[in-house]
Amino acid sequence: MATKFVYEVEGLSLDNDALVLNETVFHNANGYIGVRSNFEEGYPQGYDSIRGEYINGFYDIAEMKQAEKLFGFVEEKQTMLNVADTQGIYLSADGEEFSMFEGEVLSSRRYLDMEGGYTGREVTWRSPKGREMRITVKRMTSFEKLTLFTIEYTVEALNFEGNVLLTSTHIGDVKNYCNPDDPRVAGESFNHLVPVRAALEGGVSCLVTDTSKSGLTVCTAVKNVLSKEAKEECFVAGHRAVCRLSTYMEKGECITLTKYSVFVDSIRHKDVMEAAKKELEEALERPMSYWYQAQKEYLDKFWNQSSLEIEGDDDLSLAVRYNLYQLVQSVGKDEHCNIAAKGLSGEGYEGHYFWDTEMYMQPFFTLTNPKIAKNLIAYRYSILDAARDNAKILGHKKGALYPWRTIMGKECSGYYPSGTAQYHINGDIAYSVTAYYLATKDLEFIAEKGAEIIFETARLWMDVGHFYKGKFVINAVTGPDEYTCMVNNNYFTNVSAQYNLHWALRFYELLEDAGMLDKVKAKLGLTEEELEGFKKAEECMYLPYDEELGINPQDDSFLSKPVWDIENTPKEDFPLLLHYHPLHLYRYQVCKQADTVLAHFIFEDAQSLETIRKSFEYYEKVTTHDSSLSTCIYSIVASKLGLDDKAYMYFGDSAKLDLFNTHHNTKDGIHTANMGGNYMAIVYGFGGLRLKETGLYFEPSLPKQWTGYKFKIKYEGSQIQVEIDESGSTFRLVKGDARTIFVYGEEYLVEDSVKVPLKRVR
Amino acid sequence: MATKFVYEVEGLSLDNDALVLNETVFHNANGYIGVRSNFEEGYPQGYDSIRGEYINGFYDIAEMKQAEKLFGFVEEKQTMLNVADTQGIYLSADGEEFSMFEGEVLSSRRYLDMEGGYTGREVTWRSPKGREMRITVKRMTSFEKLTLFTIEYTVEALNFEGNVLLTSTHIGDVKNYCNPDDPRVAGESFNHLVPVRAALEGGVSCLVTDTSKSGLTVCTAVKNVLSKEAKEECFVAGHRAVCRLSTYMEKGECITLTKYSVFVDSIRHKDVMEAAKKELEEALERPMSYWYQAQKEYLDKFWNQSSLEIEGDDDLSLAVRYNLYQLVQSVGKDEHCNIAAKGLSGEGYEGHYFWDTEMYMQPFFTLTNPKIAKNLIAYRYSILDAARDNAKILGHKKGALYPWRTIMGKECSGYYPSGTAQYHINGDIAYSVTAYYLATKDLEFIAEKGAEIIFETARLWMDVGHFYKGKFVINAVTGPDEYTCMVNNNYFTNVSAQYNLHWALRFYELLEDAGMLDKVKAKLGLTEEELEGFKKAEECMYLPYDEELGINPQDDSFLSKPVWDIENTPKEDFPLLLHYHPLHLYRYQVCKQADTVLAHFIFEDAQSLETIRKSFEYYEKVTTHDSSLSTCIYSIVASKLGLDDKAYMYFGDSAKLDLFNTHHNTKDGIHTANMGGNYMAIVYGFGGLRLKETGLYFEPSLPKQWTGYKFKIKYEGSQIQVEIDESGSTFRLVKGDARTIFVYGEEYLVEDSVKVPLKRVR
Repeated sequence: MATKFVYEVEGLSLDNDALVLNETVFHNANGYIGVRSNFEEGYPQGYDSIRGEYINGFYDIAEMKQAEKLFGFVEEKQTMLNVADTQGIYLSADGEEFSMFEGEVLSSRRYLDMEGGYTGREVTWRSPKGREMRITVKRMTSFEKLTLFTIEYTVEALNFEGNVLLTSTHIGDVKNYCNPDDPRVAGESFNHLVPVRAALEGGVSCLVTDTSKSGLTVCTAVKNVLSKEAKEECFVAGHRAVCRLSTYMEKGECITLTKYSVFVDSIRHKDVMEAAKKELEEALERPMSYWYQAQKEYLDKFWNQSSLEIEGDDDLSLAVRYNLYQLVQSVGKDEHCNIAAKGLSGEGYEGHYFWDTEMYMQPFFTLTNPKIAKNLIAYRYSILDAARDNAKILGHKKGALYPWRTIMGKECSGYYPSGTAQYHINGDIAYSVTAYYLATKDLEFIAEKGAEIIFETARLWMDVGHFYKGKFVINAVTGPDEYTCMVNNNYFTNVSAQYNLHWALRFYELLEDAGMLDKVKAKLGLTEEELEGFKKAEECMYLPYDEELGINPQDDSFLSKPVWDIENTPKEDFPLLLHYHPLHLYRYQVCKQADTVLAHFIFEDAQSLETIRKSFEYYEKVTTHDSSLSTCIYSIVASKLGLDDKAYMYFGDSAKLDLFNTHHNTKDGIHTANMGGNYMAIVYGFGGLRLKETGLYFEPSLPKQWTGYKFKIKYEGSQIQVEIDESGSTFRLVKGDARTIFVYGEEYLVEDSVKVPLKRVR
Repeated sequence: MATKFVYEVEGLSLDNDALVLNETVFHNANGYIGVRSNFEEGYPQGYDSIRGEYINGFYDIAEMKQAEKLFGFVEEKQTMLNVADTQGIYLSADGEEFSMFEGEVLSSRRYLDMEGGYTGREVTWRSPKGREMRITVKRMTSFEKLTLFTIEYTVEALNFEGNVLLTSTHIGDVKNYCNPDDPRVAGESFNHLVPVRAALEGGVSCLVTDTSKSGLTVCTAVKNVLSKEAKEECFVAGHRAVCRLSTYMEKGECITLTKYSVFVDSIRHKDVMEAAKKELEEALERPMSYWYQAQKEYLDKFWNQSSLEIEGDDDLSLAVRYNLYQLVQSVGKDEHCNIAAKGLSGEGYEGHYFWDTEMYMQPFFTLTNPKIAKNLIAYRYSILDAARDNAKILGHKKGALYPWRTIMGKECSGYYPSGTAQYHINGDIAYSVTAYYLATKDLEFIAEKGAEIIFETARLWMDVGHFYKGKFVINAVTGPDEYTCMVNNNYFTNVSAQYNLHWALRFYELLEDAGMLDKVKAKLGLTEEELEGFKKAEECMYLPYDEELGINPQDDSFLSKPVWDIENTPKEDFPLLLHYHPLHLYRYQVCKQADTVLAHFIFEDAQSLETIRKSFEYYEKVTTHDSSLSTCIYSIVASKLGLDDKAYMYFGDSAKLDLFNTHHNTKDGIHTANMGGNYMAIVYGFGGLRLKETGLYFEPSLPKQWTGYKFKIKYEGSQIQVEIDESGSTFRLVKGDARTIFVYGEEYLVEDSVKVPLKRVR
């Protein structure tokens, strides 16, 4: 059971697609900054590259022109910025420039060390004139000092001696990547950065840059330190700084350039330049060994809290570890940011935050690192006023409607039918607050922030829905499945609204009982009558059910549409959204992703197992899984239904997405939600874990492809290790007080350890 | 019963809003060219003006950026071009420039003579230095020579003598008007015109101009002729030509500058410059009196064919005459063009053609001038291939889907839910073809063009709809009411599809019987099986009906939504589309315009009178009439139901729209559809006319506000005059063979004349 900590690629391909893919796969991030793994020296002209360095939550405002302008249409979007390029290091030996595209690469390797928290590139290279050298690059974004990105660039002269020049660049006037033909990245190039100041002092270059419209400022500061005395020549030209370090190398000698970059923004700091200098000074005060050690300690703790190990499939085990590593790289560490759909690994979806956070990624943190989950909720709390404004734009007289995609709270959906109309995001966020509470029982935080979110989202349901023939119905919304838009009574939406209303009522009681209600009650002007309304709507919530099929229809009219012939659709027509007009898709029973099936996982208690089984079988036939958020959910529900082979098949597809680039767009960034979903497929799926008010539940199963798996979770402050193998499931209390759990419905007290034989109890 | 032919305004207001409004109200057009009624000398700086001259069907391609790009989204639109400015005439007397904004306007008047077919401006003016003069301007776009626009500019020196200079300009590098804040006109200024050649020869200036993207060319040629010998100085500068004519005027003397402009485009001509010269030569060969006479003769014939006179309300009678005049000014006279939503009077809706043509304007021509109706159908035939392509983009495997808005056939809707999704345009076009046939029995034209349209639109229904529980249903389309989008089984759509299918079957039989079927059958590969399918779909067409209310629901879910509180909505919130997000509107029972009620007029035989009555009462309460296409329909159905007061109220609102600028946007152009609807409200409404396969029907009524009204129609080649007054309805055969008609359900043969007493027979 020793999952590898290193993912590596030997004999690097110089094919452009592979290069751009690896920029993503090997990127460095710490939740605050992200740096794509570009070659320091770049590629030759004509090669495509997405060269970028990002700050989580740092954005500019870009125009979003609407072909036809209707009231309330979004015309400006926030977009994550490429803030600077501090990656450039150019090596030349007696005038011969190092490039993997010239001369001869004798050996090469890239790796990601998930224990040490750094990436590396190692190249043995023979120049056109025969100079042989070994270049070793080690890159890190520090978890200990979030502003810090370091490159250690080591050159070994294998068979020559001579003058060596290292040119290190620091560029402030960069642009974002654009591709006018791909709807998933920005369509046009625009100067979002306005140079303010470029300074050079004591070899430290500082570039201060404003955004064009959002009123933000960033300062990047860079310092180059060579292990050997050298002639140093630094200068500033425009909004760029260059440092040229030249020295004489003996044969066999090794020199190392350590390049420190820090990123400081005006969201978190008042005087960005002062703060950047201070951060850089602090970074320089200690040796690199200190920062590597701190990095390792952070990750030791991380893996200790959250490691998930699989025995019997090394590739998969590594893929899962890779996914968890990406989650901790991506997740924001303060309330000013969240987890972007692509983390900090690329510009796909423009750095926006979606429901992906709450439904796919936050569960991992809720179960392993609730402090981070709390931060994520605090972020949603920080944009609650923006969500209230958004509700008003959509015509609602009360409540808050969270934006479908955003950075700082304003809706950034260009096509509202599969954007803003996804009102279920309110239910998703409410669900995640509840899940946090169920895992931690942290009622203080609910009183402080969580409840206000829950009450305001509950209020929105009361305004969007209405009573019709005794039932509470919700019209003209879009569920998770984006191939069916603007429908009435989407099952997922309605059941999530019901849960939202239920927990509004429940938190009201809990807070009242704890004497913690008054503040939020007064702030929101909550009345007993309003609560009565919540109760009535919860009780009367219309959950569509088809008697004939015994399933929950996805919405009122879904089942009346013809079924899309998935089997006879040419392979190259997938994903369907790139080949069919949305209006055409809307006319068929065809799902991009789990919708009702997702509801059957998240809100499983709303239906009988029989209904869930029939629904699963029905929707399986009409789902294309064109979204990366789909197969993991199918895996979980298959597990729930005891369909082990299916559960494993769906899980396998899902886990390998980015390392194997199965969706062909990993170059634009990792699929963070899929990574979180992958974790869920194991822990919720095979492990059968559920968080309910009545307790913590497990229904473990062991895929026949594995000999065992284990994971740790935190529950009500205690840490419990779960180990599942052929001999059974073992629940061991690692830290904290004894906790009660339910395994296959039976109650157990985990004081030291509890072992339960494997079985299915359905 | 002598309706005035002249609409005039005395004492011109120089308020900017009034000026821009009058540019529309007094524009000149002949169906080929349109010239806004700008002052020749312009306005002072800072005044807003939409200065434009247009050619029907002449367009460029403009980018239409989609905020989010999904498959099949329209990214380019056609836009009607402002092609040149040939209006400029600047008058100065001894250095004093004429301007109504300086000196003193002693008297002023503008008029439109609808018998003579010209507009005029008459100004008596005293210059700052006391020179008094009378300026008389007469402008005409010739119906006889469609390329010709003339300005007769007469100056009378009332109290002075001296040097007078007339500067006439011809500008080729013009732009379209833009207003980024109004969704109904173009949002940005763009250079659509590319100067190709400017030539000056014998006082004739020719400007040849290409469009930037659509591959079209226009040539404008101008010649200035002064009634008195003068010093003439003409020159070309860039893409502009200027002619300066100076002469000495005696006190009391009158001089007239006649400015001839011709417009020739590459859609209709091969060598535009040669053609323009030739057209201009022809215009110059004859005296202006000839052109005025020809104009009058054309209009005599027009009024003789189509005059509609009302006794008892002079304002209304004039408004109706104005509307009919605008229709003949606006309608294209060849198959290369149609009738734009704003005619040729302005740039609103960018010169696009909508369903407005078939459902609101064509009926007037079908009944009075079927040759023009035939041209309009020929235009739709000419874009049938584009409609087939459009169907493919929307995912259909067969048939044609007409674009919601277009110039040359490509869909130009930026927001498809209330654009492309309005599939009923197919039914509308099919209906208009049928109506043409019913009025003319011109089966040759059906064989030649009409049937192909009918069959291809019928095929589309078979592809968009499907059988569900024994019924033929049509999902995810938008009906006429744009406040309810993308619904299932919109009643109007379904009943129009049924009619379309019915007439596909009927024309198949009629053509077969006449031995005229083979060509179109072979071309389209029509089979008996396909016809069987049409038949089954027609028979099983699902027409939603609500037992409880006894009405036809607008769509499957319309009645389940809450009713919008129209009464308590602030007045300034109308039209709702400018103040509420579409998603919000879609959640309510609120109609922008007649939808089911329109169906109850157009396809009245599909329901009992009782259902229609209940529907009318129901929808009346939930309709805002935010569209100018609504009240006329409500008037017609109110007439049908014997609700005379309501019928009159709705009619009155509708008729005065442009002359009284009740929608506050007449500056962007006239509302041509409303004008046609106005005609229909009288002839179909009060007159109760219907065209059916079984014959021509009337149910005349006389609004109590009138003493009488009369109109002429053409039916099966014969002309019939209908006169209604308190003594009854008189049907007189004016021309052609005797025809059978039905009045209040009774059959009559109109040989000479038939008189039927007024009554209601319901």
